[in-house]
Amino acid sequence: MRMARRRVILTGATGFIGRHAIAPLLERGFEVHVLARNPPAALPGVVPHAVDLMDSPATARTVAAIRATHLLHVAWFVEHGRFWTAPENLDWVAASLRLYRAFAAAGGQRLLGTGSCAEYDWSSGQVTGGPATPIGPATLYGTAKDALHNLLRAASAIDGVSLAWGRLFFLYGPHEPKQRLIPSVMRAVLQSRPAPIGDGLARRDFLHVADAARALVTALDAELEGAFDIATGTALPLIEVAAEAARQAGDVSLLLPGTRPTPASEPSLLCGWPEPLARIGFRPRFDLMSGLADAAAFWRLQVGASPCPGA
Amino acid sequence: MRMARRRVILTGATGFIGRHAIAPLLERGFEVHVLARNPPAALPGVVPHAVDLMDSPATARTVAAIRATHLLHVAWFVEHGRFWTAPENLDWVAASLRLYRAFAAAGGQRLLGTGSCAEYDWSSGQVTGGPATPIGPATLYGTAKDALHNLLRAASAIDGVSLAWGRLFFLYGPHEPKQRLIPSVMRAVLQSRPAPIGDGLARRDFLHVADAARALVTALDAELEGAFDIATGTALPLIEVAAEAARQAGDVSLLLPGTRPTPASEPSLLCGWPEPLARIGFRPRFDLMSGLADAAAFWRLQVGASPCPGA
Repeated sequence: MRMARRRVILTGATGFIGRHAIAPLLERGFEVHVLARNPPAALPGVVPHAVDLMDSPATARTVAAIRATHLLHVAWFVEHGRFWTAPENLDWVAASLRLYRAFAAAGGQRLLGTGSCAEYDWSSGQVTGGPATPIGPATLYGTAKDALHNLLRAASAIDGVSLAWGRLFFLYGPHEPKQRLIPSVMRAVLQSRPAPIGDGLARRDFLHVADAARALVTALDAELEGAFDIATGTALPLIEVAAEAARQAGDVSLLLPGTRPTPASEPSLLCGWPEPLARIGFRPRFDLMSGLADAAAFWRLQVGASPCPGA
Repeated sequence: MRMARRRVILTGATGFIGRHAIAPLLERGFEVHVLARNPPAALPGVVPHAVDLMDSPATARTVAAIRATHLLHVAWFVEHGRFWTAPENLDWVAASLRLYRAFAAAGGQRLLGTGSCAEYDWSSGQVTGGPATPIGPATLYGTAKDALHNLLRAASAIDGVSLAWGRLFFLYGPHEPKQRLIPSVMRAVLQSRPAPIGDGLARRDFLHVADAARALVTALDAELEGAFDIATGTALPLIEVAAEAARQAGDVSLLLPGTRPTPASEPSLLCGWPEPLARIGFRPRFDLMSGLADAAAFWRLQVGASPCPGA
């Protein structure tokens, strides 16, 4: 008997996380259909579709024609500094619901959606993820992800579509927005500038973005149902992470802890619950040191390629 | 000093609830802009706009041109027997988010959205509404209303738009879907047929639909913020409600209690919390007897107008 070809729609494939999902999807034998405004060129096994997810009729037509078995929905509004409160979060809920409707109507069987640790209630200051942590988003971004999860859970149960929902914690690696902690430290050090940071006492659970994408694909291709964390289960003080980032970039002495304000409202611990991913056989390939070495190699090329090294 | 004209967008104006909102909006001095696929003809103070809310670009263009100060959003997918689980609930969340975005972008100041008692957790079997009752929808419809409320609450706080969210309980009156309890009893009695019902022991909080619409308009025009129940605060056994319905239709002896199955999962009490509405001065004009008399008058005309009285 010939196995029916498994066909996945991937959104966000040109972004920070989604670009790392293509290779593991191909490894697992999926025919990959990329939906993006400016999709990458076709590769063996990868079919690009130039479509703006904000254009619901065009998206619906494209999804109906693909007739995918699987959907890995990574795309969202992620502009650094704005995404927490941007009204575009509402547009992405609406676009995601339209995408789901078209996928289910075309016979889709399995959906993996990407949530966030921002869906959890952070008010205790100590977040350890998983079922022990109550849901209670304090931001529009977290509210939007939680609302979408609730809607997809209720609808997919009726439609007979299998749903998993991966809550992303702290990711780093190539193509990370350069204003964030690790790129800003690495870029400063690579350019021999001082790297001011806050007190660095808060602990965060960091995962290399390629491992996060592999975790998404592993979960998509497993029996896992419901919400799970995409995290290592180990949270390190930010100062340790920043120090290793500076070290991998070449000079830890440029790191200046305590020279930037630390927001008082920031929780002291944000750590994920890795058990569901461990149960389906996922293990990260990068530890923090090798992952930061990989990130440093990327930023070294970026900074070296800059026409104005001092910028 | 001349007061700026207050301009409201009303959705659902051709439906069961919304049709009763036009008169109280005009009484309060609003210029009423009706958005509907097939809007009623223009009246003094009422401007019809033929637009399908599922057509987001057309809706956005229309809303941008109106530049309303207020939005009373009543429209939803309400097909009897289907609305609890219909995938169209997702479409209405998406359409409502687009509508809100266009309203806020055009300078909108005050929004009243319509929720449902189905947002509450019914699992205790005893629902009394208000802040004492936890949220925990068990249906796609309730999940969709709750998700929309959470999204609008988070977004409106950022946008500086004032939001109230009215949770509707059990409504009856002219134009009620005829398969529901009160119309089915009244139509049977008016046609001299037996009216079979369940055991009728469950208690429900019933409000005449014209009072519900007046409550929405009163709340829209008040300082009320956040979620509130649209209900009387008194729940009667369904058998008492059905008996009064049969009596108003002319013959209580045709009512046959206990001849239809009663779903075991139905909560024994669903009652709203009327305090927020009372605080803003709202009082129902109909009690159950006068409200059912009004409904009976409507159904008497409908049944009398039927080309086939036995149908």
